[in-house]
Amino acid sequence: MFEPSRNENLRAMKVLVTVLPKPSVLDPQGAAAAEAIRHLGLTGVGRVRIGKVIELELPDSTPDSEIHRIAKDLLSNPVIEDYSISK
Amino acid sequence: MFEPSRNENLRAMKVLVTVLPKPSVLDPQGAAAAEAIRHLGLTGVGRVRIGKVIELELPDSTPDSEIHRIAKDLLSNPVIEDYSISK
Repeated sequence: MFEPSRNENLRAMKVLVTVLPKPSVLDPQGAAAAEAIRHLGLTGVGRVRIGKVIELELPDSTPDSEIHRIAKDLLSNPVIEDYSISK
Repeated sequence: MFEPSRNENLRAMKVLVTVLPKPSVLDPQGAAAAEAIRHLGLTGVGRVRIGKVIELELPDSTPDSEIHRIAKDLLSNPVIEDYSISK
């Protein structure tokens, strides 16, 4: 017999956690990238910020609160970085 | 007189370039993060990949081809990384 609900917890989803420096924090790496982009001919470029992205494979049943806990406690530094989560 | 088309080129958009290691490339940083996440109690975590994200402020009129050029030539290493662009 087909029991779809049995496998619900085994299905995986991909979650992207994006971590960027807070707007008030200096980002010299981003400033250097902006300068390089201007040299490549895209003179209209404004602010550039460089951060990291973490792609997680998690069970479908993972509660959002757990994902936020991981993002806050492990993947970002809340003093200088903001994170966002997308599924 | 109000001329909205005059300012079209001055309007800025935010573009996110996400750069992740290709699936076939070893990602020791991601493996370490996966291990740390398991230690934090999320035992169901699968593969973790860590990449970078670049947020660009560009004029609205910037053609997609230019954004791809920047992403390919400057922001990523096509040998070991894939990039994606979202606006």
